[in-house]
Amino acid sequence: MNTESNQYAIGIDIGGTGTKYGFVNHRGEITYSGSDIRTNEYNKVEDFVNDLYDKLKPTIDVVGIEKIKGIGVGAPNGNIYTGTIDYAPNLPWREIVPLARLVSEKFGLPCFLTNDANAAAMGEMMYGAARGMKNFIVITLGTGVGSGVVANGHMIYGEDGFAGELGHTIIRHNGREHWSTGLKGSLEAYASATGITLTAKELLETSDEPSLLRDYKPEAINSKIVYECAMKGDNIAKEVYRFTGEVLGEALANFIMFSSPKAIILFGGVIKAGDLIMKPTREHMEKNLLPIFQNKVELIFSELKEADAAILGASALVWEM
Amino acid sequence: MNTESNQYAIGIDIGGTGTKYGFVNHRGEITYSGSDIRTNEYNKVEDFVNDLYDKLKPTIDVVGIEKIKGIGVGAPNGNIYTGTIDYAPNLPWREIVPLARLVSEKFGLPCFLTNDANAAAMGEMMYGAARGMKNFIVITLGTGVGSGVVANGHMIYGEDGFAGELGHTIIRHNGREHWSTGLKGSLEAYASATGITLTAKELLETSDEPSLLRDYKPEAINSKIVYECAMKGDNIAKEVYRFTGEVLGEALANFIMFSSPKAIILFGGVIKAGDLIMKPTREHMEKNLLPIFQNKVELIFSELKEADAAILGASALVWEM
Repeated sequence: MNTESNQYAIGIDIGGTGTKYGFVNHRGEITYSGSDIRTNEYNKVEDFVNDLYDKLKPTIDVVGIEKIKGIGVGAPNGNIYTGTIDYAPNLPWREIVPLARLVSEKFGLPCFLTNDANAAAMGEMMYGAARGMKNFIVITLGTGVGSGVVANGHMIYGEDGFAGELGHTIIRHNGREHWSTGLKGSLEAYASATGITLTAKELLETSDEPSLLRDYKPEAINSKIVYECAMKGDNIAKEVYRFTGEVLGEALANFIMFSSPKAIILFGGVIKAGDLIMKPTREHMEKNLLPIFQNKVELIFSELKEADAAILGASALVWEM
Repeated sequence: MNTESNQYAIGIDIGGTGTKYGFVNHRGEITYSGSDIRTNEYNKVEDFVNDLYDKLKPTIDVVGIEKIKGIGVGAPNGNIYTGTIDYAPNLPWREIVPLARLVSEKFGLPCFLTNDANAAAMGEMMYGAARGMKNFIVITLGTGVGSGVVANGHMIYGEDGFAGELGHTIIRHNGREHWSTGLKGSLEAYASATGITLTAKELLETSDEPSLLRDYKPEAINSKIVYECAMKGDNIAKEVYRFTGEVLGEALANFIMFSSPKAIILFGGVIKAGDLIMKPTREHMEKNLLPIFQNKVELIFSELKEADAAILGASALVWEM
């Protein structure tokens, strides 16, 4: 019998560099997975979908296509309403790409698409730190700052599918100009890996304090180096994280007063710095909240393995829809 | 037969000064109404509920209690989950007041309570500018700045019922200190009637420009006077509205990137200034949005009469629950 309990969903995570996939059962276990597709090598999305099919076909045959309920895809600027990827700046296909339709036609399976941060939030809700929660926000702090907001147990997609772009909200009036959007003072300009690198360079320029970071050429400094120097106790590198936490904490306070979540789940490379960033984040979050919101909202790290989370989240779309 | 079409809901709007009420039919018509209760004259909430009952009883008898489906109440800091008013700074009853229970017991009718801004949003959704919309935000710009957020067709109450405190989100880092919350740079510190008064005083202090506002003692200036002077073409008074619109527009951009609404509906005394505030609001809202959100979101004034809106919104709770 073909009940949900022996069915699979395919989860696909399309990133700017690589695309990962996995076959996920209803308990959230990834039974087969792979990551051998280089997204940026495909100028034509049709070629990408064809190669994706060729990679997955042998496993589909082993599992049996009748046991596969569908395909869920997370991608930057993925739109759940239209199934299209719209003007994703980090993917080789510009304009509007009807990815869900292309995948569905090629595989002969239903395909659901959403943006990568919403997929991560869905994964957290079904298999991660947000299990059983009806109100939470997931913030991914990676190359950029992504987010997914769940209220009343449902993802907030908004009128056009683009809700939850919290990384682009303005947290510093007339602040740092974003390298790509041109917005001034948006959260992403500070709390992303790129933002951390920029903060480090600014601090090095505006002080004479000795720092391990001065052993590197300015153009060589990146968030990984800042992290390593901070772990070695370097004061400027630690100040980078303190400042980043201050900005992030203020932004989280605003988000809490919007949707009053039970928890905010943080995710992505930036949180590797642990308490160095979390302590100031929590301090400035609480400080900027009305008393009725204080000491209520859990600030937690994702429980999911980073590589798995996106695949699980994308596959969760299939069970949800 | 007792179908919904011949039923009534009682809507009650509890304000810091006065309490208004009305009997509302299913088409949103207020058939009987009154506003002869001075909230601030009741030190004990039980006395308030008793007097409210005495005022309403004659009309309940005329209508027939069997035709009244319930009572909806909007009040500052009203909590829909608990039916309590929690620490409302502008009401005579501090601490936590179990208002819905008291009203329900006294009247022998179901009673639902929410905060005043959420009630206004509910009223807009059922009878006002947001009819048929699934995603919108209502902002009330009055003595304070209140808000209600609807996503996926449902009011966002959050984990504890306090979601949608957008007036307290920080829009100017280290900005103007709020007279009551102590938060620095919150929207309410600028875009409320009190904020407008403060902006006017600041502008008068920091310039020598002639102004009709200088005919008043600084302590006598209020938002009504600023409005009247702006209408007479006074440059400083007009600059007050331009600046207020700039701050408000930036805040609205942040809200849009959170929940991607179809419309933002503005409400309250401050919007009487019309284009003086709306033009800069719209300009700075669009300027701070990612392109995918630009020129999409309607910025509209409430269609409801101010006195009626709160009563309608509160009564709408009864049909909704």
